[in-house]
Amino acid sequence: MHVLIIGAAGMVGQKLAQRLTTDGELQGKPIAAMTLADVVPAEGPFGFDGKLSIETADLSEPGAAERLIASRPAVIFHLAAIVSGEAELDFEKGYRMNLDGTRYLFEAIRLAHHADGYRPRVVFTSSIAVVGAPFDFPISDDFHTTPLTSYGTQKAICELLLSDYSRKGYFDGIGIRLPTICIRPGKPNKAASGFFSNILREPLVGEEAVLPVGDDVRHWHASPRSAVGFLLHAATIDLEKVGSRRNLSMPGVSATVGEQIEALRRVAGDRAVKLIRREPDEMIKRICAGWPPGFEATRARALGFAAESSFDEIIRVHIEDELGGNL
Amino acid sequence: MHVLIIGAAGMVGQKLAQRLTTDGELQGKPIAAMTLADVVPAEGPFGFDGKLSIETADLSEPGAAERLIASRPAVIFHLAAIVSGEAELDFEKGYRMNLDGTRYLFEAIRLAHHADGYRPRVVFTSSIAVVGAPFDFPISDDFHTTPLTSYGTQKAICELLLSDYSRKGYFDGIGIRLPTICIRPGKPNKAASGFFSNILREPLVGEEAVLPVGDDVRHWHASPRSAVGFLLHAATIDLEKVGSRRNLSMPGVSATVGEQIEALRRVAGDRAVKLIRREPDEMIKRICAGWPPGFEATRARALGFAAESSFDEIIRVHIEDELGGNL
Repeated sequence: MHVLIIGAAGMVGQKLAQRLTTDGELQGKPIAAMTLADVVPAEGPFGFDGKLSIETADLSEPGAAERLIASRPAVIFHLAAIVSGEAELDFEKGYRMNLDGTRYLFEAIRLAHHADGYRPRVVFTSSIAVVGAPFDFPISDDFHTTPLTSYGTQKAICELLLSDYSRKGYFDGIGIRLPTICIRPGKPNKAASGFFSNILREPLVGEEAVLPVGDDVRHWHASPRSAVGFLLHAATIDLEKVGSRRNLSMPGVSATVGEQIEALRRVAGDRAVKLIRREPDEMIKRICAGWPPGFEATRARALGFAAESSFDEIIRVHIEDELGGNL
Repeated sequence: MHVLIIGAAGMVGQKLAQRLTTDGELQGKPIAAMTLADVVPAEGPFGFDGKLSIETADLSEPGAAERLIASRPAVIFHLAAIVSGEAELDFEKGYRMNLDGTRYLFEAIRLAHHADGYRPRVVFTSSIAVVGAPFDFPISDDFHTTPLTSYGTQKAICELLLSDYSRKGYFDGIGIRLPTICIRPGKPNKAASGFFSNILREPLVGEEAVLPVGDDVRHWHASPRSAVGFLLHAATIDLEKVGSRRNLSMPGVSATVGEQIEALRRVAGDRAVKLIRREPDEMIKRICAGWPPGFEATRARALGFAAESSFDEIIRVHIEDELGGNL
């Protein structure tokens, strides 16, 4: 079993590589080789004793996709993308990286399929940004995709391509719409959605964090551990059961900022909550208003995808996975 | 006012050009120039006394889009596409013509927008093929797009691009999902959907026609006259009222084949109905099962788009427009 991770230098890609190393197998087969590709060299997982290749590759450059699939990996995790804010600021780069790059990958696989019957499992990370306000709440599985960002548009287009290439039998694709990952490990960042993680992660280690929106903002979350779980389940699930609709909204926890803060209080006490400083930011408030509040995710749950069931659990997962289990 | 029609050699393009000539104006402004573009030379409309240009152009070829918009037409009707059956048989051609061609057009407009502020109205003909079974009936405006053909996938992708380019202000786009046009004038064709027109058009002039499916097949139709009406309304409507969701399922008539036949009986009598010969075709039956039975089209109707209200009316429109009003 040879696994290729594209976008392996990112937070989720790194956790996925480490989890695959720990598991040692995928689809019931030992992982003999792993290729980690990204625009910068990805760190290799700790303790992998198969054949490890670290590839520096930009999918949007001609020939890159062909090179990555030359050794015919059986499972491809495609996580690579530039983020929402950058895709919005640089229209051309967003379409080049997030649309053309993915299409080049799919085309390379199609041509390999015609050449030698190659037909890998392709797990594509889509995003809840494919939907756009106004919303029902919760958003049903058959709600239309009317993205309000170029990033969401690019993800929605890639979903359509993934379905069509899969329908034609060029590969076995599945797209998973990730909730906003919370709590992201690392340092606070300036992404508009960063505060969801910041206001929990920083207070948990005694640091101050800034909250730019009101307590009533409701959004959709899952932990990094769940994200990796979704990817692994997508790589192993019987696609006959998924049917022709290959893009699934993943389960998660719908919570308001106020509910997040109360979960923090239950897990870490008032002292942690007091470290949240309110600094309203009108621009971030406006951006948030376009974000989805939550999904039914009926199909994904029925197919065995599972996330946390409360924000308390999301915080506890962070304490276990990032803080060694200690507060 | 300069109007560009891309795909002007097709049936709807020809009728649109003739209607614009008859009207003499669009958006309340006289039509001083009309450019008719297609991969083959389009026939010019009868009686147009403005500046007429007939352009042979394939949008999917580099430079073609730039050339077509060089004179900065204020309204662009983009009707060009290869049809569903061909896009399904020739995967590469389908994506080249139906996706890349449209994207090149949008990109050419975007670059012109950056160069000199050009911002035309773009009316894009999408299709009900953007949805795929299983369906609700009627299909609501917020039902997701899960096409089951490459053609439908390409149209759904172009819808997403149209929305994003419009949101960014590069042009003022609107996409209209046309029902299956009925009754198509001309000769019977081998398109899987051809029988919907054939079983009415041929008997109306005393010719036999073949019906390959059962009476219970339900589908969604509007006349060629309505299609032209949709295009003109889309070219003139206040887009503020449309909002950010720029792709609209057009109104139409939902009817079973049996209901179609009873309408034919009411309009043209038993003698016409007897000319329908039943020759079941399993392949066409299977294809039909994936087609949408009808749409709510609530938003389009509220925005003033109008179609026929019965199949009898669809047949009468054909008699008026194609048979000189006489049976």
